[in-house]
Amino acid sequence: MRMVDIIEKKRDGGVLTDEEIRFFISGYVDGSIPDYQASALAMAIYFRGMDDHEIAVLTDAMMHSGDVIDLSNIQGIKADKHSTGGVGDKTSLAAGPIVAACGVKMAKMSGRGLGHTGGTLDKLESIPGFRIGLTIEEFENQVNKIGLAIIGQTGEVVPADKKLYALRDVTATVPSVPLIASSIMSKKLAGGSDIILLDVKVGDGAFMKTKEDAMELATKMVAIGKQLGRKVIAVLTKMEEPLGRAVGNSLEVKEAIETLNGGGPADFNELVYDATAKILLAAGKVKTLEEGFEKSKEVVADGSALRKFAEMVEAQGGDPEYIYHPEKFPQSKYDVAILSDRDGYVARIAAHDIGVAAMRLGAGRETMEDAIDPSAGILLCKKVGDFVKAGEPLAHAYTNKENAEEVFAEIGHCFYLAEEEVPVEPIIIASID
Amino acid sequence: MRMVDIIEKKRDGGVLTDEEIRFFISGYVDGSIPDYQASALAMAIYFRGMDDHEIAVLTDAMMHSGDVIDLSNIQGIKADKHSTGGVGDKTSLAAGPIVAACGVKMAKMSGRGLGHTGGTLDKLESIPGFRIGLTIEEFENQVNKIGLAIIGQTGEVVPADKKLYALRDVTATVPSVPLIASSIMSKKLAGGSDIILLDVKVGDGAFMKTKEDAMELATKMVAIGKQLGRKVIAVLTKMEEPLGRAVGNSLEVKEAIETLNGGGPADFNELVYDATAKILLAAGKVKTLEEGFEKSKEVVADGSALRKFAEMVEAQGGDPEYIYHPEKFPQSKYDVAILSDRDGYVARIAAHDIGVAAMRLGAGRETMEDAIDPSAGILLCKKVGDFVKAGEPLAHAYTNKENAEEVFAEIGHCFYLAEEEVPVEPIIIASID
Repeated sequence: MRMVDIIEKKRDGGVLTDEEIRFFISGYVDGSIPDYQASALAMAIYFRGMDDHEIAVLTDAMMHSGDVIDLSNIQGIKADKHSTGGVGDKTSLAAGPIVAACGVKMAKMSGRGLGHTGGTLDKLESIPGFRIGLTIEEFENQVNKIGLAIIGQTGEVVPADKKLYALRDVTATVPSVPLIASSIMSKKLAGGSDIILLDVKVGDGAFMKTKEDAMELATKMVAIGKQLGRKVIAVLTKMEEPLGRAVGNSLEVKEAIETLNGGGPADFNELVYDATAKILLAAGKVKTLEEGFEKSKEVVADGSALRKFAEMVEAQGGDPEYIYHPEKFPQSKYDVAILSDRDGYVARIAAHDIGVAAMRLGAGRETMEDAIDPSAGILLCKKVGDFVKAGEPLAHAYTNKENAEEVFAEIGHCFYLAEEEVPVEPIIIASID
Repeated sequence: MRMVDIIEKKRDGGVLTDEEIRFFISGYVDGSIPDYQASALAMAIYFRGMDDHEIAVLTDAMMHSGDVIDLSNIQGIKADKHSTGGVGDKTSLAAGPIVAACGVKMAKMSGRGLGHTGGTLDKLESIPGFRIGLTIEEFENQVNKIGLAIIGQTGEVVPADKKLYALRDVTATVPSVPLIASSIMSKKLAGGSDIILLDVKVGDGAFMKTKEDAMELATKMVAIGKQLGRKVIAVLTKMEEPLGRAVGNSLEVKEAIETLNGGGPADFNELVYDATAKILLAAGKVKTLEEGFEKSKEVVADGSALRKFAEMVEAQGGDPEYIYHPEKFPQSKYDVAILSDRDGYVARIAAHDIGVAAMRLGAGRETMEDAIDPSAGILLCKKVGDFVKAGEPLAHAYTNKENAEEVFAEIGHCFYLAEEEVPVEPIIIASID
């Protein structure tokens, strides 16, 4: 088998065999297939696509290029939740405890933030003492005991994706649905969960800019799950403004705590309860989605979801007092109100630019080497649909940096005001399973 | 400027600017742009194409990546001739002396053969003593003095093409018209001639399998010439059987000598005289194509074309006696007649396979390191349209190898016989200038 023939076949629109796909992935990981052939194939896939079976085999081959987590020692049904990345997305921090409080185990491996999107691990690390680096054994024990753990990727999970993604990034081959779907799914499937809920973000602040692209990606990922024997549910959600009000690490943890206390912003709650209801239904804990909503709200109302969060924090070395008393989180040196210069209805809040602004305030990193300031970030005072008067605050900026005036101005520019009332559309666009 | 943005632009169907194309070529040659980005761009070009201006700039950038020959010291109009590679193509060996005998200077840089196609340099080296490695000064002096020289590429001509072609070869990005056209033309233009005649072969034994593909390539190459201020003439010619009767190095030199003596096979002569007439017309030596044919035939009839060939051979260190007495060329040890097993009209002679068979007899090389046997090869006794009786020879195989029976059988399989008469079509399909 020769790699050049595989590239040629895909270039001409052919369907690759299982053997050809596995030959490519194993050869690319062991170095016998050079980068320049892998990038040519990636570009051919960009133009020609892959069918569902090809994508599933590619995903499976990538998954098996490294460590595959075996959760079979953990009793019961295990669920995982993944978002394609948005701004202000702290859904796992609220949904995980709710699901676990309802008796479905949540064994989640998560990532760090880069650029305009935050990472769940960075958010959790804003809780003093919180450890994300558990061993597989500690991970299993914790999930078995309290039903919930969120950790960083352990061992060498999907080295094929690490190598291929770095290559795609510099060869203009990132936006290919088969390659995105297999990249995401190989990592999720390697995590070993039975149920995987995927939140595919659509819009300005998201990777997928249009509904059609997001729908295609979601459909492919659900199909991969079917082919490889896992339950995958995809939800398409709007990312035309940041999710909730908080963007920044401890700010987002505090917002998740608000939701677990029965409060929290409407759009964020809509997303959290939709996710938990769907996971509970898929796990057979409830008979209808309706019942899933009710059960989720019960464990919030009776405080068991918040206690579950605190239990996880404690089990992972963090101080649970921060969960019960979020006012303990350190405040940043500066708290600057960003004021509106006129009256109007908020029509749009540029999510991507808010993400970048939060990063520049210290909440994110431009390169993987940058340090994060846990207290920095942005709190939106106004959301899409709200009316604002001239001189009223649109948002608050939190930072420990001096001379951030330029960023403050940029935050103001993220708000687009209209003279007419702006309708608020539901955050959930579609569900695929 | 970032290479990834250039790849993305072409991937999305954009037109690259002159600066972007030059940035790519200079960066690729100096090593600052890695192979994996070059192959991704090549694949994007495969799918998206390039417009005439992009191709001309790419050609110019490649040409200037290395030494560009300056023929301005050579007086008069300089012509060059290039074939995209066929089987049995010894046109330059006859056309060069004819053109030079008519007073148009022929300053040709040529290549070696690989795989199923032979190379002009290998053919000339079958003449004992012939040197292809002249210095630029020797080359200029010789063309000035006798009007004709054929040498190997000297200095570092178009290193960008060398590097890019090697990459395309292993990344399934060879068959892209913009890349083929710029590869051929950058080398031809670097040769410095005023007039360039391109023989674009079509068919089984050629690189371009269909007339449409060949026409597209020819049109693009003529367009490059126009954009860069040179006279380029393209001729589409049939390669559905080997050209002439001889395939193999000294066999082909002898066939060219036959033509220069007024004999030679009809299809080969048709091609030679068409090329010389077109060059003479483009050079202003004649007023019509008709006159070009006549003048070409005159210099053959009066022996001056053959003498020109002998002069060149002598000037480049070869023994001119071989040109006047071709029976002096060494014979191979074996001369095997390949007999027909039945009666019929020859409908097709698989040119590619004849080329491979000749290579296996010793006439060609599989890798650039292989040595060549100058006397080995194939002489066709029958051409398309001829009637053959069972037991009559279809061809003769010449080799110094033992145990070549398998190859002999393959030569027989290259002949496709029909029961009905087969019409012989003209070898020249179209001309573009």
